[in-house]
Parts: sequence; C-alpha cells; structure tokens
Amino acid sequence: MMRRIKLIVAYDGTNYCGWQSQPGCMTVEGVINEKLSDLLGCEISVIGASRTDSGVHADGNVCCFDTESRIPGEKFAYALNARLPEDIVVVKSEEVDETFHPRRNVKQKTYEYRIETGTFQSPIGRLYACFLHKTLDVEEMQKAAAYLIGEHDFTSFCSAKTEIENHVRTIFDIKITREKGKSFTDNEFVVISVTGSGFLYNMVRIIAGTLINVGLGRIKALQVQAILDAADREKAGPTAVAKGLKLKEIVYFDS
Amino acid sequence: MMRRIKLIVAYDGTNYCGWQSQPGCMTVEGVINEKLSDLLGCEISVIGASRTDSGVHADGNVCCFDTESRIPGEKFAYALNARLPEDIVVVKSEEVDETFHPRRNVKQKTYEYRIETGTFQSPIGRLYACFLHKTLDVEEMQKAAAYLIGEHDFTSFCSAKTEIENHVRTIFDIKITREKGKSFTDNEFVVISVTGSGFLYNMVRIIAGTLINVGLGRIKALQVQAILDAADREKAGPTAVAKGLKLKEIVYFDS
Repeated sequence: MMRRIKLIVAYDGTNYCGWQSQPGCMTVEGVINEKLSDLLGCEISVIGASRTDSGVHADGNVCCFDTESRIPGEKFAYALNARLPEDIVVVKSEEVDETFHPRRNVKQKTYEYRIETGTFQSPIGRLYACFLHKTLDVEEMQKAAAYLIGEHDFTSFCSAKTEIENHVRTIFDIKITREKGKSFTDNEFVVISVTGSGFLYNMVRIIAGTLINVGLGRIKALQVQAILDAADREKAGPTAVAKGLKLKEIVYFDS
Repeated sequence: MMRRIKLIVAYDGTNYCGWQSQPGCMTVEGVINEKLSDLLGCEISVIGASRTDSGVHADGNVCCFDTESRIPGEKFAYALNARLPEDIVVVKSEEVDETFHPRRNVKQKTYEYRIETGTFQSPIGRLYACFLHKTLDVEEMQKAAAYLIGEHDFTSFCSAKTEIENHVRTIFDIKITREKGKSFTDNEFVVISVTGSGFLYNMVRIIAGTLINVGLGRIKALQVQAILDAADREKAGPTAVAKGLKLKEIVYFDS
C-alpha cells in the first residue's frame, strides 16, 4: 500500500547549493533523495516546501515522498539520520494523509535573519549571521517593520528574477530583538523574525537589507511606506547575504 | 626600537590541527606567523599562551611577538584581520612591557565545555558542542564539581601523555548552566565553565568527561573525591571530544 511520509528537515546550508536538486552541485534535496533511495532500494524524489538559496539554513523545511515500504513513519528520521551527513538532520518524520502537499495549505512560515554588529565578527557563528561594523537603531527598524505587516503588494521586496505574477502576500508579524554576543561580549546580535502566509523570491533577504538601511540611518522608517507603494525593486534596500537567513518553521492548516 | 606586541586571538578550531605550528599541518599559530611575517616583511614567530588541541576553539587565546615596526600596537588587530581567514580573528592588539610573557604571571584561565542533549543534534552549532542522546542531571554534576574546586593534585584528570611532573593546580570555580536549544527547542545545552590557575594536558576535557558520567548516573557525585585521591588517570571519565571545548579567557596579574 502506498503511503505518504512527511519529513521536517534542518540543515546548515553552508556547504550546499541550496535546497533544490541540480546536476553537478551538492544540494540538500539531492542528498536527501540519494539517502532515501539507498534506504528504500528504489529511486525516490521528495517534493519540497521551500527552495532555500545557497548558504541559507533551516530548522524546519518540509518535504514528502510516497513509498510502499513498511517502515513506520516516525522511524524514517532515525534511519535517514544514520545515513545523512551531520549538516542535514531529519527532525521529525510521520505518515500523513495522501492529500498532504508541502506547498499547499500553508498557514504560515517563519524566517529568521541574524545580524552581528561590532568591531570584528566572531569566528564562531560567522556562518550563521551577516556582519556590520556599525550598530543598528533597533527602535527605528521596528517602526519601519510596522509598515510591512499586513496584506500588501510586495513587488518592491521581490527579486526581479521571479516569474510569479501575483506579488500580494500577508506578513503576520515581524519581531526584531537584540542579543548580547557570547564570544565577543562587545558585539550584539540583531534578530529579525518574519512570519507570513508565504514569501516571494528573496523577499525576507530584501526586507532584511531594507531594515538594515533603516537601522543604519540611511533611510527613515516612514520611507518604507513609499517603498512598498512604488512596487519597484529598485526602491528597496539590497538583498542581505544568504548566510544570515534561516527558515525556522512552516505551519499547515489542519495539522 | 624593539617593542613587544600582545595579541588576543579568537578562532574556530574546526579546520586547524590545533594552535601549535607543525610541519605539513595547518595550525592557528602557523597561519598567524605567516600573516604577521607578510605584514612586517620579515620572519616572525609568536609565543603562545595555550597550545589548544585540534578542533578546540578560543575566544581569547594570547600570544606575543617582538618587532621594530612603527605600526601602533592597537592597529595590528586591523592589519592582521584584513589578512587572516574568517575563522581566526585578532580581537585586540596592544604594546606591552618587554617583560610580558603569555605563559607567565597568569592569574586565571577560563575554559567552557558545551554539551547538547536531545534526540538529534542540531546541524547549526554541531561544531561547537558535543552531543548526547540522554539528558544530564545537572544538579548531580554541580555536586560532583564541588569536589574539584580548590588546590588539588589533578593526576587523575591529566592525560598520561604529559611529561609535566607537578600535577597540583587550583580550580577557582566551576559553573554548570543550562540553556534552551535555539534550533531544536526540545534540545538543551549544558555548559561547564571552569576557571583555574592553570590546567594540565586535556584536564578540562577529562573533567567534562567525568562530569558527563556523573550527569548520566554512571558514577555518583561523591565518587569524584575518590577519583581525585587515586591520582590515577584510569579512574576518571573519558576525555570529552575536542569540539565542545573553548578557551574563553586568560587573565594576567598586573594588567
């Protein structure tokens, strides 16, 4: 009997060309397909939820596959983790209804963008945060973020490379918090946590790049409204570097 | 005029065969010597404080060198960081008295040993903590640690490989704290912070291995007294893996 198995996958994206399988390049999806195929003795291709870019990390990306294997759903995590490299971990596996699809019925996704500020970047953690020499005005960033919450046309915050036509998305919440540095106590981390119904290509990294410009005083918080209204990628800030971004969680309706 | 320059150095030890220069192997000291020699146009060999092992990290190892260069002491950090790879950072540089020596006049050193516990190790942070499937009894570990505080003969907690004859050292404090996991919220970190006058070869990793055995219930806290008294390496726990260890700080008298 064919069964559908859902996997929640965490990874350190440093050594991968992103999620999506591509020839001649090591990807997270490619490695998972290879190990699943080894395990089950037949060719398996998972369907993924989020095609994270090269260098982007995840605590909870989601994928699924169909199998006639009688391995209990929750055991796939153990069987796969024994085969996977240490930088990819199946956090949880379970059998789901055959109608489950990782990109449908998504209630919300949460991404986190980490920024370290200080004189020098601490070597430990350097692969999981972008670095700035200047301190950020977090209060001003919070004011700017408020303009982005709600349902908007996010054309200004979408890579011009995308082919998707509908740029309307809903951001439920943006939290910006400070953490003290652990290695260099003079350093500070600013963490931008964005929860929304879905995201356009590079949207969180462009939001992060824009909020960084606000935090640096290069643009004022209230200009973010005009940037949204312009529906023009040129108006927003730069795409912040990949290594600061992490896909935290995907929540589905009815689960 | 010859001047002595002190460097405080942080590094991610993952990709290095430890601190000490050795032929055919990339070491932290070797890379610093190379970049300093490049910068100053002559052969420089630093004198280091702590010969950390392969895979061990540091927030604040210390070294020094002599130079006739007129670069201001505090500018060496900037000049070196521009040349060093991202996993080695000079946190601070300064001119010091010609009598300064990184291994003399040490008031205290602090090491930190990190342990992640949970079902699976989170991929982010996996290079900076050892991993256990079982939870640790931190209260019992704290009781055990109390026996180690003070001046003792630490022969039981010293690698048999050492040639040093005097095994008496003073531990000023051992703090054991819990932290919630950030990537996998079910996971927990247990951090052992050890401050002492000085440490024997592998001493902190053997203390960590022994305290882990206490935390797992394999030995009782009060047995640690007997382990100390035995003055026998065989009686203590295993040497915990290198990647969990970090040299936090070296404090000198009169500075």
